[in-house]
Amino acid sequence: MLKNNTVKLSSRPTGFPPRDTWTYSLEDVREINDGEVLLKNLYVSLDPAMRGWLNETRSYIAPVQIGEVMRAGTIAEVIDSKNQKFKKGEILSGWGGVQEYSISDGKGYLKLPNNEISLSTYIGALGMPGMTAYFGILEVGKIKKGDTVLVSAAAGAVGSVVGQIAKIKGCKVVGIAGGKNKCDYVVNELGFDACIDYKGESVIRGIKRECPYGIDVYFDNVGGDILDAALIFLKKGARIVVCGAISQYNEMSAKGPKNYLSLLVNRATMKGMVVFDYANKYHIATQEMTQWILDGKLKSKEDIYEGIENFYEVFKKLFDGNKKGKLVLKL
Amino acid sequence: MLKNNTVKLSSRPTGFPPRDTWTYSLEDVREINDGEVLLKNLYVSLDPAMRGWLNETRSYIAPVQIGEVMRAGTIAEVIDSKNQKFKKGEILSGWGGVQEYSISDGKGYLKLPNNEISLSTYIGALGMPGMTAYFGILEVGKIKKGDTVLVSAAAGAVGSVVGQIAKIKGCKVVGIAGGKNKCDYVVNELGFDACIDYKGESVIRGIKRECPYGIDVYFDNVGGDILDAALIFLKKGARIVVCGAISQYNEMSAKGPKNYLSLLVNRATMKGMVVFDYANKYHIATQEMTQWILDGKLKSKEDIYEGIENFYEVFKKLFDGNKKGKLVLKL
Repeated sequence: MLKNNTVKLSSRPTGFPPRDTWTYSLEDVREINDGEVLLKNLYVSLDPAMRGWLNETRSYIAPVQIGEVMRAGTIAEVIDSKNQKFKKGEILSGWGGVQEYSISDGKGYLKLPNNEISLSTYIGALGMPGMTAYFGILEVGKIKKGDTVLVSAAAGAVGSVVGQIAKIKGCKVVGIAGGKNKCDYVVNELGFDACIDYKGESVIRGIKRECPYGIDVYFDNVGGDILDAALIFLKKGARIVVCGAISQYNEMSAKGPKNYLSLLVNRATMKGMVVFDYANKYHIATQEMTQWILDGKLKSKEDIYEGIENFYEVFKKLFDGNKKGKLVLKL
Repeated sequence: MLKNNTVKLSSRPTGFPPRDTWTYSLEDVREINDGEVLLKNLYVSLDPAMRGWLNETRSYIAPVQIGEVMRAGTIAEVIDSKNQKFKKGEILSGWGGVQEYSISDGKGYLKLPNNEISLSTYIGALGMPGMTAYFGILEVGKIKKGDTVLVSAAAGAVGSVVGQIAKIKGCKVVGIAGGKNKCDYVVNELGFDACIDYKGESVIRGIKRECPYGIDVYFDNVGGDILDAALIFLKKGARIVVCGAISQYNEMSAKGPKNYLSLLVNRATMKGMVVFDYANKYHIATQEMTQWILDGKLKSKEDIYEGIENFYEVFKKLFDGNKKGKLVLKL
């Protein structure tokens, strides 16, 4: 009988989650019923949003329950099927959770195409982070050719795609990232026009230099002081896409953007987004971005670590500022 | 020769403006030139926005310069004219400033119609505050029938009109005001469905009781803790109209809305507005609101004080929470 290594939520953290937030356990894999598939998870997606799912408070998605397998996007192989939609050997993307095997009725799973794109890309630029970037910058940010676009966490899974899409659409794109290495990567490999190293200089000074005429769109993944700096430089009618606030997720008490009245002065808009709202259009984004990747216009970079037993160590990398690209756990 | 009492800016305040922020002086009124009109100011509009015009920082309008007459909207009578568009005896609204007489080439001045509506209404519900309310709640707030609308500073010049328009459009309207007297006025005279007395109870508890299904539109005139309370109760797709932040205008360091991530969770929008952007549509709003006033559907209440020498004392009332309706100085 197959044995399944699982990572389950065991307690709700306040502040940064300690190691014992999760329990590791080994369980038998039961037989599948009619309509079900048995999946072997190959890649597990690690996302900053996971921190939010641990909180009991009202949010855009139900919290993970105590005792439940930790929620995560996965790339999986069908190893047994009693569901006529899926055949053994097919590769799917879906929500398999942090475990080696999962059983599903197939809802929410998509078959991946057979092409030259690496599987992990389907939880990177062609997965949630990519969908978030695509709909966030195009439908919420409403970028136009010639706009000046500022992107925080520019080397991250979402920010890196946001900036590349904005370049494809003819914008001037300035990133913000931590450290010279990341900034070099953002400019030289991803093709941003410039990148401000928030560890090396004042972000306010950096924006003033790189966006001398102000910002049309700010794509915010971080919140905190960087959001406040961006607010200072809004152009009239500017849009702020509120996608995340990684600087605040582990804080007991979040910090509000004290410069928010710049919205008034500049008739600007700050709008929140949740990628799931665009689910009925994922196929459009996937098709367009697949072509960009095949044409070499869009790069997806994943930072891949191995072994389910390393889940907690890899999870910590989401918040320590040292990952480059999409964080992935390979099983 | 006519003598003109003027109130000029003499220094830029930090925090709450002290009395010597302005200088009072008596000056000769010069002869008018071809194309000009001489106006006797009858009513001067006092608005919270005046505080912002004293700051030297970049904003939606140029700061008042040191030595300049303090900017203010006025209702004035033409007492001499060398401009063929205006005749002696006509009543105009425009930007005459805090002084007894002003000379103008007529730009930005509008003739008031001859009807049964009191003159001071033209700096109240039919003036800037009314235009702000009309375009703010309709074009930025985008209210629909059945929406739950929350309005802060509900007894004030803008808030009182916002709530009445939302009622006319079929919304459920909840105000926030300071003190039982104001709240009674908001409910009994202006027809709001309810009013939360922020001096008498926790605003969070009040919103929970009066808006049990959440808020579709929050019209914010105050900022600070009340904005943070409103953020907690946003419905999915809610709109916040950032019209002002009277709680913050005199603060050295403004307070950001720490609950702003509710925008993300609820896919909500926070959008700033400046009434001047709608100038080419003022006539539409004026026409519709005039009819509402004549039909008894919309009330305009002005709190009128006399004498230019009392400018500073009346200005202070903008911020002490004790005015009821639009603050007006009658000369």
